[in-house]
Amino acid sequence: MSDENSIFIGGKPFMNYVTGVVMQFTTKGADEVVVKARGKFISRAVDVVEVASKRFLVGQVEISGIQIDSEEFKNQEGRQVRVSTIDIALKKK
Amino acid sequence: MSDENSIFIGGKPFMNYVTGVVMQFTTKGADEVVVKARGKFISRAVDVVEVASKRFLVGQVEISGIQIDSEEFKNQEGRQVRVSTIDIALKKK
Repeated sequence: MSDENSIFIGGKPFMNYVTGVVMQFTTKGADEVVVKARGKFISRAVDVVEVASKRFLVGQVEISGIQIDSEEFKNQEGRQVRVSTIDIALKKK
Repeated sequence: MSDENSIFIGGKPFMNYVTGVVMQFTTKGADEVVVKARGKFISRAVDVVEVASKRFLVGQVEISGIQIDSEEFKNQEGRQVRVSTIDIALKKK
């Protein structure tokens, strides 16, 4: 899976991401799209997937896999911190 | 699966939930625990699962399933709103 079919969720307007997912399937003809997020944006990633699949692509796509993980790294103050991640894969039915 | 083995994530101190998950497996001898959250608490639910499974229960539990969904309801102003939900099941290895 290349990054081409991934949508990274951040702080842009919510509908930008929903439109991004929908267009991957419609305009770009993708068979699978992975919605990815870290930290506080995880809740938003779930919202994006739910709205895209239940309002815009009803009956056309399904969730094919959900993975959660976490990454540890040193922050600017040199403290070890952990950030959670999520990958939600949607595929064409 | 009864609610007895479910942990609902909300606004209490983070470690309360982590301890709750860990104790379900250790003190209470549960084979499976489901961490549940709605809306903005979804990110927190993932954090709780990651910390519980990777820091406190290393090698003892694994994620056995993740489900996302959403519920529609009328809010106080009578508007139809959607809230996302997540269920993350952890099971004893």
